Amino acid sequence: MTTKMAINAKELFRNQHRLIRIIEQSIRMCSNQSLNAAQQQKLQQQKPQLDTDFKITKSIASKLITAAPEPIVHDEEVGQQFSASSLSVRLAMPQQLQPKPDIDDELGFGKLFTDHMLKIYYHKSLGGWQKPEITPLENLVMHPAAKVLHYAVELFEGMKAYRGVDGKIRIFRPDMNMHRMNLAAKRSGLPTFEGEEFIKCLCRLLSIDSEWVPHTEAASLYIRPTLIGIDPTLGVAASDSALLYTILSPVGSYFKSDSTGAVSLLADPSYTRAWPGGAGNRKMGSNYAPTINVQKEASRKGLQQVLWLYGENHQLTEVGTMNIFMLFVNEKGEKELRTPPLNGLILPGITRDSILALARQWGQFKVTEDIFTMPDIKHLLNEGRLLELFGTGTACVVSPINRISYLGEDLYIPTMEQEKPIHETIRETLMDIQYGKVEHPWAVTID
Amino acid sequence: MTTKMAINAKELFRNQHRLIRIIEQSIRMCSNQSLNAAQQQKLQQQKPQLDTDFKITKSIASKLITAAPEPIVHDEEVGQQFSASSLSVRLAMPQQLQPKPDIDDELGFGKLFTDHMLKIYYHKSLGGWQKPEITPLENLVMHPAAKVLHYAVELFEGMKAYRGVDGKIRIFRPDMNMHRMNLAAKRSGLPTFEGEEFIKCLCRLLSIDSEWVPHTEAASLYIRPTLIGIDPTLGVAASDSALLYTILSPVGSYFKSDSTGAVSLLADPSYTRAWPGGAGNRKMGSNYAPTINVQKEASRKGLQQVLWLYGENHQLTEVGTMNIFMLFVNEKGEKELRTPPLNGLILPGITRDSILALARQWGQFKVTEDIFTMPDIKHLLNEGRLLELFGTGTACVVSPINRISYLGEDLYIPTMEQEKPIHETIRETLMDIQYGKVEHPWAVTID
Repeated sequence: MTTKMAINAKELFRNQHRLIRIIEQSIRMCSNQSLNAAQQQKLQQQKPQLDTDFKITKSIASKLITAAPEPIVHDEEVGQQFSASSLSVRLAMPQQLQPKPDIDDELGFGKLFTDHMLKIYYHKSLGGWQKPEITPLENLVMHPAAKVLHYAVELFEGMKAYRGVDGKIRIFRPDMNMHRMNLAAKRSGLPTFEGEEFIKCLCRLLSIDSEWVPHTEAASLYIRPTLIGIDPTLGVAASDSALLYTILSPVGSYFKSDSTGAVSLLADPSYTRAWPGGAGNRKMGSNYAPTINVQKEASRKGLQQVLWLYGENHQLTEVGTMNIFMLFVNEKGEKELRTPPLNGLILPGITRDSILALARQWGQFKVTEDIFTMPDIKHLLNEGRLLELFGTGTACVVSPINRISYLGEDLYIPTMEQEKPIHETIRETLMDIQYGKVEHPWAVTID
Repeated sequence: MTTKMAINAKELFRNQHRLIRIIEQSIRMCSNQSLNAAQQQKLQQQKPQLDTDFKITKSIASKLITAAPEPIVHDEEVGQQFSASSLSVRLAMPQQLQPKPDIDDELGFGKLFTDHMLKIYYHKSLGGWQKPEITPLENLVMHPAAKVLHYAVELFEGMKAYRGVDGKIRIFRPDMNMHRMNLAAKRSGLPTFEGEEFIKCLCRLLSIDSEWVPHTEAASLYIRPTLIGIDPTLGVAASDSALLYTILSPVGSYFKSDSTGAVSLLADPSYTRAWPGGAGNRKMGSNYAPTINVQKEASRKGLQQVLWLYGENHQLTEVGTMNIFMLFVNEKGEKELRTPPLNGLILPGITRDSILALARQWGQFKVTEDIFTMPDIKHLLNEGRLLELFGTGTACVVSPINRISYLGEDLYIPTMEQEKPIHETIRETLMDIQYGKVEHPWAVTID
């Protein structure tokens, strides 16, 4: 890539949205109809490209854009499903309403909560899922033998509601969260549910607490759907009672618009987050407790996050609670964006999936899902071919990495030294979608 | 070993208790003073062996008997410890008292609970551990953001109270449970505590609910100490608030006195319970949720438990929630009892530790802590050298195994075909200690 091209890359990427928008408008809300969408895209591609001054260098299969997850098949024993049409609402009394925080203050992460919550009980003995209810935010009451308290029969999702530049509230690819949540339920012996019905209930909750969605791009409303097993029996077994609930928390942006902070990592191969045959690819509570002490150790060493390695070759798998991406110049001299594959050792991040889809659409560099190791990182650093390393996730969108402490060595990563870093373009692009600056099927507007 | 010796082995083992008792009486309650204990044992060994008609064929280091765990060192940041002397008691009202179950009915496991519970809160902001309290058994009330519900910040222990033949209530090696629980707290970012103080509080709870300890050797009172993180914040971090609580549940014997049931196992190498660098050697909730679906799969195949394998050579690690032991004839023609080593992949079972100590004291066969694999099992079966395979744990004491379904093969294990099976001797010996038929320092009487 020439220098001039590199300088123009960011502008180029931003303009590409206009083309992507044209292509995607036609397939919007048709996410389950990929054949139909593919045909429409083909039609679009045959039309002259009007609203653009550049060409997409690679053809893109429509499923890369829409990536609609497979519908969940419920086990017969789950019983009746809940329906959003039977949702009941019990509003907080005026004196129960909490003052909204000043978003210029430090909101932190998940310390403040809104006025209401969503609850849906499951009781096998009562036929399955019960009626959904929105109630004031209140404490949960449970038997001390509840399985969630003993055997980590629990799973969750992380989503956000964004206040768009048009004042409308949007959520991002909620079908993906619902799909992943149901996969985790299956893995945990918890009942599966209809994601679409849940999202309808969630949208109602969001509209009730809509004033908690910050009126700024510097913050958002974090959404925490949670599913716990509450059977009051001590056998290590599937839970016949469960509670699916959701709380909302206003959170600050990890990055201010005028500055970005890079993080330093502890890479200690003596700790492993996930392993083949385990459940490291499901968003279950059990993946988190064992990481807390390791995170504390990183903090003690003055490092901000843990870089999770796996195997004798010290593969990079995740960073903190994020997926990891590397931009480098490969053996052929091409720029390549690489992230570890979905081989069971990493969480199938929705931000990860979105970045892969966008980058493949851009076609400006090679995009691969493949293993890379700490020796690879050192080798690339030595040859000056490592450009960027960053974590990705719902909370931070993108988190650039500038240092790794590994087996007594301090490795400095030049992520922040790139002139037009890819990770910034990615963050801006995703935030443009999330905050409604560009129309995109991934952003679902709450009416 | 000649046939006659084999026939007499069980009697021999039972008589050995008398000698063990003499040795151990002197070191009883001195579990932290192993040097002193060793000296005392040496003195004992110099004395003529009076109350016995056999000789111990191997010398036993005293730490094998006493195995007092190292005292826990608290991090400075934990703050104040709680003391049993400030324990408060709020008794249930007469109308709150539950009827005791008929122990001839199926008690099941952990379905019924006693009238009272023990609770000790921890609040870093209030200086550390708060005053312990015994209250009626009641629901827990917690914020829906409590860390235990999201990140599996939770750990537990399994203990039992036994009604001895003398009517007294005993617990078994409680110092071991406290040590293990504190190790798990450290691993989970939860506050550590003084195990001795906790045991004093627990003994008070047991004396209040003493009539719940079944008056039979066919049942016992299961004790479930539990430590959960209750900080109402969504960051994946150590919890600044916690609750250490204990509930009690009368449970039946896994084995009736006149019959034993052997279990069949699913050994599927595509599932892994624990791995190097993980937390599989700590009794944390996070080790259990990922096993539930695999246990369901075993049940669907008509098998009772999961045999957890590890690594490419398919090492046997645990069975269900138990440690595993194998008795076989080794290459030299010796009987050998083997269990996997404490290499981080298995829970350091207290029953496991006790069996190793007893078997080494008996000196009747070789005792090793070493890896064994499914190919080893098949090889030993082919050569007729595999004698017994059994799981061990607090709930069942000993659980003989008679069948393994492994990669499409059904392997029949002759555990139940031995004339004087070791696993029965082990169970009887441990139950003799637990139910007070022999005096032993492992059994602690509740006054």
